[in-house]
Amino acid sequence: MMAPLFDPPYVAVIFSSQRTEGDQGYGRMAERMVELAAQQPGFLGVESARDAEGFGITVSYWKDEASVAAWKAVTEHRAAQRLGRDTWYQGFRLRVAKVERVNGMG
Amino acid sequence: MMAPLFDPPYVAVIFSSQRTEGDQGYGRMAERMVELAAQQPGFLGVESARDAEGFGITVSYWKDEASVAAWKAVTEHRAAQRLGRDTWYQGFRLRVAKVERVNGMG
Repeated sequence: MMAPLFDPPYVAVIFSSQRTEGDQGYGRMAERMVELAAQQPGFLGVESARDAEGFGITVSYWKDEASVAAWKAVTEHRAAQRLGRDTWYQGFRLRVAKVERVNGMG
Repeated sequence: MMAPLFDPPYVAVIFSSQRTEGDQGYGRMAERMVELAAQQPGFLGVESARDAEGFGITVSYWKDEASVAAWKAVTEHRAAQRLGRDTWYQGFRLRVAKVERVNGMG
């Protein structure tokens, strides 16, 4: 899924992760988190890809830092973050970045 | 593949794309571009994932905007960009963003 480009500036949260073996409730929670994120103030869009080896990148786009901070603090999201650390991810990287210019086709 | 976190600020180039059908030389060129990018001044790392439906995200990390601009202008890379537009991608999004904070595990 490709998110619209929007006019910068806005905020990108780049989340890259290596999954552990087995689903363990991950798939359902991942879907729920996309659904829940899309309901938050300041949510602009999300793009996500995971390869056959379990390495994935999800980039969510937000109006500003305040909307990113609010999303991080949502109770159901916090529970998912804990399960991610404890169960679903061997490792992850989270980078918060300000989008300054965009380009695209199609 | 997960790139090290480094200390911000640095620049992230977020490239999301939907592939066309068939390889058409894409796989070999994608490998070559990673190899070539890694030789450029200011290159910090790259993360990439593509799913079974051909949607992929590649995020490359760079010291500064100047190194991003120099990489964009490398002749062999420019040829790949043209092939991407003409042959390999149904569509793509390119976002250049300044990484401001990072977090991670594992």
